Amino acid sequence: MVNVAILGFGTVGSGVAEVIHKNGQHISERVSNQIALKYILDIRDFPESIFAGQIVHDFSVIEQDPTVGVVVETIGGATIALDYTRRALMAGKSVVTSNKELVATHGYELMQLAREKNVSYLFEASVGGGIPILKPIRTCLAANELSEITGILNGTTNYILTRMIRAGLSFEEALREAQANGYAERNPAADIEGHDACRKICILASLAFGRQISPDQVPTEGITSITLADVEYAKSAGMKIKLLGRAIRREADGKVCAYVAPHLVPDESPLANVEGVFNAISVVGDAIGDVMFYGQGAGKLPTASAVVGDVMDAAKHMCYLKSNCWEAGGPEVVFSQEEVASAWYARVAGEEPVEGARKLSAAQGEPGESAWLIEGALRPAEVRARLAGREVKNLYRVLG
Amino acid sequence: MVNVAILGFGTVGSGVAEVIHKNGQHISERVSNQIALKYILDIRDFPESIFAGQIVHDFSVIEQDPTVGVVVETIGGATIALDYTRRALMAGKSVVTSNKELVATHGYELMQLAREKNVSYLFEASVGGGIPILKPIRTCLAANELSEITGILNGTTNYILTRMIRAGLSFEEALREAQANGYAERNPAADIEGHDACRKICILASLAFGRQISPDQVPTEGITSITLADVEYAKSAGMKIKLLGRAIRREADGKVCAYVAPHLVPDESPLANVEGVFNAISVVGDAIGDVMFYGQGAGKLPTASAVVGDVMDAAKHMCYLKSNCWEAGGPEVVFSQEEVASAWYARVAGEEPVEGARKLSAAQGEPGESAWLIEGALRPAEVRARLAGREVKNLYRVLG
Repeated sequence: MVNVAILGFGTVGSGVAEVIHKNGQHISERVSNQIALKYILDIRDFPESIFAGQIVHDFSVIEQDPTVGVVVETIGGATIALDYTRRALMAGKSVVTSNKELVATHGYELMQLAREKNVSYLFEASVGGGIPILKPIRTCLAANELSEITGILNGTTNYILTRMIRAGLSFEEALREAQANGYAERNPAADIEGHDACRKICILASLAFGRQISPDQVPTEGITSITLADVEYAKSAGMKIKLLGRAIRREADGKVCAYVAPHLVPDESPLANVEGVFNAISVVGDAIGDVMFYGQGAGKLPTASAVVGDVMDAAKHMCYLKSNCWEAGGPEVVFSQEEVASAWYARVAGEEPVEGARKLSAAQGEPGESAWLIEGALRPAEVRARLAGREVKNLYRVLG
Repeated sequence: MVNVAILGFGTVGSGVAEVIHKNGQHISERVSNQIALKYILDIRDFPESIFAGQIVHDFSVIEQDPTVGVVVETIGGATIALDYTRRALMAGKSVVTSNKELVATHGYELMQLAREKNVSYLFEASVGGGIPILKPIRTCLAANELSEITGILNGTTNYILTRMIRAGLSFEEALREAQANGYAERNPAADIEGHDACRKICILASLAFGRQISPDQVPTEGITSITLADVEYAKSAGMKIKLLGRAIRREADGKVCAYVAPHLVPDESPLANVEGVFNAISVVGDAIGDVMFYGQGAGKLPTASAVVGDVMDAAKHMCYLKSNCWEAGGPEVVFSQEEVASAWYARVAGEEPVEGARKLSAAQGEPGESAWLIEGALRPAEVRARLAGREVKNLYRVLG
């Protein structure tokens, strides 16, 4: 018998309770052990819920109950969640979370603590919602030296961009629609400014390359500057605009560059066809070549599916991260995206040609502006030099 | 120290040797154990190879060496490979394989034997080449009740269909090109007649639904009947023709229907955009919704990547299949595809309308024929009744 406590009865927490309740027999058979939901911590009561009897308001009840083996942290943020996670691990309980902010900022410390206590800190649900990605990277792809991870990591922004591309909505219209459909929050900043994608690429980069990469090391640009003109110019070049998180390992010295920014993605790339709230993560390794993982990157039940998968691993003590967590970070781990060359898309004031660039056309283009596809492999300084003296409206990389 | 023996120094076997050799240090660090290649069994000598010193010709050398912990079987087929696999497991060695024929036909028996001997029989590489799929299904998605698996499981046929769709080649021309490029064998029957995809959907269905499904329970149709007219008719309906393996679990009684056949796939489906030699496998679960795994489904190094990932698992005794293998099969496990309803594509002689169907158009259509999209959800007997008296050239399901 493994007793589980859920911290936070919000969207994901209630989804976890639901999945354990609905598929409990099947789950217990799979792990050859009874998995029972003992506590749900929340400040609120839920008298109407079938889980009303499990609700507690005091974390120390869970902390001090030696029969609780696995704590599910779905509080979010890096304050209370950090405190409770530390205390749960200190008390010898495995912790499973969907909290990307906490893992991206304190992952190394918490995994160290888990290792000292010989328990697990698992977070498959923190990236890509229910899409299996972290465990496959660390196990199925473990024979590979990985060189790059590129992903559509945020469903809200991908929904907005899809509606701009498919329905010709403006950014503001598409955002309002996303909010009306529950795909964007009332305060959408964390999504549309790229911070959510940033946390996820930090976790992916840390796991794939073995050292903690922190959000403050990851230049992050969101999608608020993208206009319908950009969407049309991209289309005329056979491409789609996507917000990508990327992490690239440089073979020469093993350093990593991670960043989040809009990119033009050629239509024939599998990433170009990832639409709506779906996420997709492409991983490149020396033996495997290119593999991609695709699915719903958020949502109550998909995310709960990944959390409960980790709970089952923790219950079986098949903890893939126990001996595989990443090491501490530091400034020496990363290199700058200023050193990463690519082709570029530039929308600039004026009509004068840009050297070595192909002019793009769009019905929605503003008069007095022009857009260019600058081919070849240029570093940011080189492309800026090529555009010197021009007012640059938008400058995005082209995925090569 | 874990000693490994490879049986069969062909494409995959030599790839496994190469990956262990190239990434050996990284691999040993990951499993906290030295992984060493001790033997390679082949009937040939390879005096020029860097592995010449490891070549042996007598299986009993491996069988009787107690220091060999993991045997990699890359012989293929279900005769010698079956004998050696049984003997290796009997000798207390874990076995890792890429041999889909053996797993599809004898998987249950071999897993039982492995369980009795407390070793592992692992076969991630048998489906989707290097794409992580079996382990994610059994671990990351383990909290789900799965309901359906649908995949493009054979790169050769997908390459041929892609060239027909993209370049307008006939089936015969595309097959010759695939052979010239090394994507199809000189005797392409196993691929183009669907047998390779059949073995893979058997393995996926067995793993996902928990009972052995054997190739003789899986109706299998290949791509040899597909013409350029079919490709164009599909295009006019906004679809692409793909060879799919499918396995569907019926909720009412838990029975499974698995089959392999060409399908029309709507362009907006992620499966429609899987091109060339790539494979993709879509899995549907009650919590996760739809997830898809994409990558190179064959090839020396991608397949070797999956084999070595399993070797690492066996070396760590993190054997996901130990307690999770499937149970014996039987006629009571399956239901017939005659009971599966769908929309249909029909190409028939004559121009007379088909009831409840939309006529399709194609420049390549033969005079005196017509093609129809029969919408709704019809069982095969119902669609055949609707086409009674007509000469049916091709009849394919539409993926719903």
